[in-house]
Amino acid sequence: MFSGAQISIYPMSDDFVGVILGALSALDPYRDRLRLETDDISTLMVGPPELLFPAMRDLFVAASRGGVHCVLSAAVSRGCPGEPDDPACAPRDGLGGDDRPLAERIETARQAVMRADHAGCPVAAQFSLYPLGAGHHMDEIYGCIDFVKASGVFERSKNFCTKLRGDAGPVFAAIEEAFLRFGAADGHVALDLTVSANSPTAV
Amino acid sequence: MFSGAQISIYPMSDDFVGVILGALSALDPYRDRLRLETDDISTLMVGPPELLFPAMRDLFVAASRGGVHCVLSAAVSRGCPGEPDDPACAPRDGLGGDDRPLAERIETARQAVMRADHAGCPVAAQFSLYPLGAGHHMDEIYGCIDFVKASGVFERSKNFCTKLRGDAGPVFAAIEEAFLRFGAADGHVALDLTVSANSPTAV
Repeated sequence: MFSGAQISIYPMSDDFVGVILGALSALDPYRDRLRLETDDISTLMVGPPELLFPAMRDLFVAASRGGVHCVLSAAVSRGCPGEPDDPACAPRDGLGGDDRPLAERIETARQAVMRADHAGCPVAAQFSLYPLGAGHHMDEIYGCIDFVKASGVFERSKNFCTKLRGDAGPVFAAIEEAFLRFGAADGHVALDLTVSANSPTAV
Repeated sequence: MFSGAQISIYPMSDDFVGVILGALSALDPYRDRLRLETDDISTLMVGPPELLFPAMRDLFVAASRGGVHCVLSAAVSRGCPGEPDDPACAPRDGLGGDDRPLAERIETARQAVMRADHAGCPVAAQFSLYPLGAGHHMDEIYGCIDFVKASGVFERSKNFCTKLRGDAGPVFAAIEEAFLRFGAADGHVALDLTVSANSPTAV
């Protein structure tokens, strides 16, 4: 198993470097379990799937706290057959892929979002789930959409993606559930994510 | 066939709204053949695959021309079985999916990049190709990587994506070739794209 993400934060500000540097300490609680590598386009985050989304959430909330319009963009992946198996990515018991029938996974995912703590940061988000290699990828995508519609943070379906709106806590929890519980449990699954805060054009 | 993209431009500037509005006229030559719909996160672009990448390129080059650090992020898709067939997306003859053997597709793609006009705008980019639903998705991904390595704009392989660097002309041409020529000709293919210009940390 290999899991991780390429993530970027875009603060729409002349002081974008300051905003990013000022938010980095939000990653400190995760540094002993996540490997981070940065270049001029993105930061690679490698680690167990249950840490990726909380780490992204805390970094994004910290960057957005000052009121600057910020966007987080991420390409998240698990189970890619082209990546080496990495013990650092092993999920804790019960937090790996879920191979139960779709209806049970939808209910477990929905309950997880209901339990999520609020972060005090309203966001809009959209994501696309790509279950690769299996024969029934559209069934998994439709099951994931059914879950998101019942998650409490659904805004609307768009072409190529699903849009969410709500507090950063349940929104990131919903995206984590989409990533972990849909697509084959041990399969190759990718997720494309955009999260936005403080947009002047938000409805 | 349905093809299109959800795209966003992020100017790292207090005047991000002005930078975006100032670039929009770059889309004028495409407006009669592309359907555009904007909300607070992204702009949907629906149209034939051979117009999507030139339109994204011209918009991004226009936004970057003033020297502001700008990023374009896009989720591009063709052949999604959940989208309606749309005659407006029909590719011109010879510009649809390509079902020849991998080696021939790699060579055709390479030659297309060599012929691309330069735009006078140096960029870095990274993308992930997701051929969905078929049985041999990694063969298509590896074939696409072989093409990109020979394209003249390859920078390096990264986890989950491939990084390019060069003038916006050949870089966008290489991404278009990756999207059109790899994955099943009539299959469901998604591509996740990030393009960056004027980064203060570019190497």
